[in-house]
Amino acid sequence: MKIAILGGTGDIGEGFALNWAARHQIRIGSRKSEKAEIAAEQYREALSDHELKGGIQGFDNRTAAEGADVIILTVPYTHVSGVIDTVRPVLKDQIIVSPVVPMIKNEYFEYNPPKQGSAAEEILEMLPHGMSVVAAYHTIASGRLCSLDPAFKCDVLICGDDRRSKDAIIALTDEVECLRPLDAGPLAAAKMIESLTPLLLNLAMLNHLKDPGIKVL
Amino acid sequence: MKIAILGGTGDIGEGFALNWAARHQIRIGSRKSEKAEIAAEQYREALSDHELKGGIQGFDNRTAAEGADVIILTVPYTHVSGVIDTVRPVLKDQIIVSPVVPMIKNEYFEYNPPKQGSAAEEILEMLPHGMSVVAAYHTIASGRLCSLDPAFKCDVLICGDDRRSKDAIIALTDEVECLRPLDAGPLAAAKMIESLTPLLLNLAMLNHLKDPGIKVL
Repeated sequence: MKIAILGGTGDIGEGFALNWAARHQIRIGSRKSEKAEIAAEQYREALSDHELKGGIQGFDNRTAAEGADVIILTVPYTHVSGVIDTVRPVLKDQIIVSPVVPMIKNEYFEYNPPKQGSAAEEILEMLPHGMSVVAAYHTIASGRLCSLDPAFKCDVLICGDDRRSKDAIIALTDEVECLRPLDAGPLAAAKMIESLTPLLLNLAMLNHLKDPGIKVL
Repeated sequence: MKIAILGGTGDIGEGFALNWAARHQIRIGSRKSEKAEIAAEQYREALSDHELKGGIQGFDNRTAAEGADVIILTVPYTHVSGVIDTVRPVLKDQIIVSPVVPMIKNEYFEYNPPKQGSAAEEILEMLPHGMSVVAAYHTIASGRLCSLDPAFKCDVLICGDDRRSKDAIIALTDEVECLRPLDAGPLAAAKMIESLTPLLLNLAMLNHLKDPGIKVL
């Protein structure tokens, strides 16, 4: 598969790139292609440090999205609308994956969903008609994902209304050794999943947990 | 401590009663005292099956609440307001614990919070001025709690605005071998915790998980 990771120059982008590069073509996207190319180069080096090989390339966000089967929006909530405007001309049948979480922080983090109910449902409204959104990867600490450490296994709660798209993301997630995908139902469940992120951030802060993840027992 | 478990004739009431009875006085409450007395009798028998002893008594909800230091509202969301009306005359400085979750089910479960933001914050509004609410125990499957099986350990996310009340419930939770208490911040965090319950119910249904609980890694 061709997987575009928009805003993929951050930690979480690196984690996905390293985990998927052996089997898939990874297209790191950034506002400036140079930045994405530098990140892609670093990820290829990290791969070879693990004696792995794989295809990771850097592009501007639109070019990254154009050639992709799956687009993962690893961008902050406040940038989502701008990024979607940029890539909209090349959107047709890609699966859009949203790990996006709208939140505010005063003394503690608080979930702050838009009127659509969740960021994922708001993103769906921004897309050309007929495209689908899968919400996933809200609770993965990038520190864990990058470590390529299969001893640690955390759960990924995945929801969406299009069965084929959701199954594709469940299968992709299952390929990552440290992750277990769980079907969390329809896209309307996204608000319950997105709100886990501020909850985990507060738990980490108050209970001295590092890189917390969720496991459903 | 004297712990009133209102609506305590259900599975979750039994789980708490069995786990706390050796150290605390458990006051099972129900709308009819006879029903609570029968349940208390059964719990005492279950205790002796485990070669344990402890004080568990049954009362009507108001009497159970009157003598208590801590009141746990193990009642469905739709009954909460009626139960609080019943016990209000005897409320003064008890710590009120809310595991209450307002939710609806169509094809899937969905979190359905009141205008105050969460059931816990709505309950706080119903109480005499100066009392405090601690939100906890939303994600404990009663099947797990009743088994008295310390091999299984799941997390309890606890939030509240009054430090002493929250610490008391954290300490009580820590006494239960199969539970780990985590401080989840202020009462405003309750909506993020309450929404875990419908999420877990959906995950159980869609992924064939029995009695799911949450663990923060």
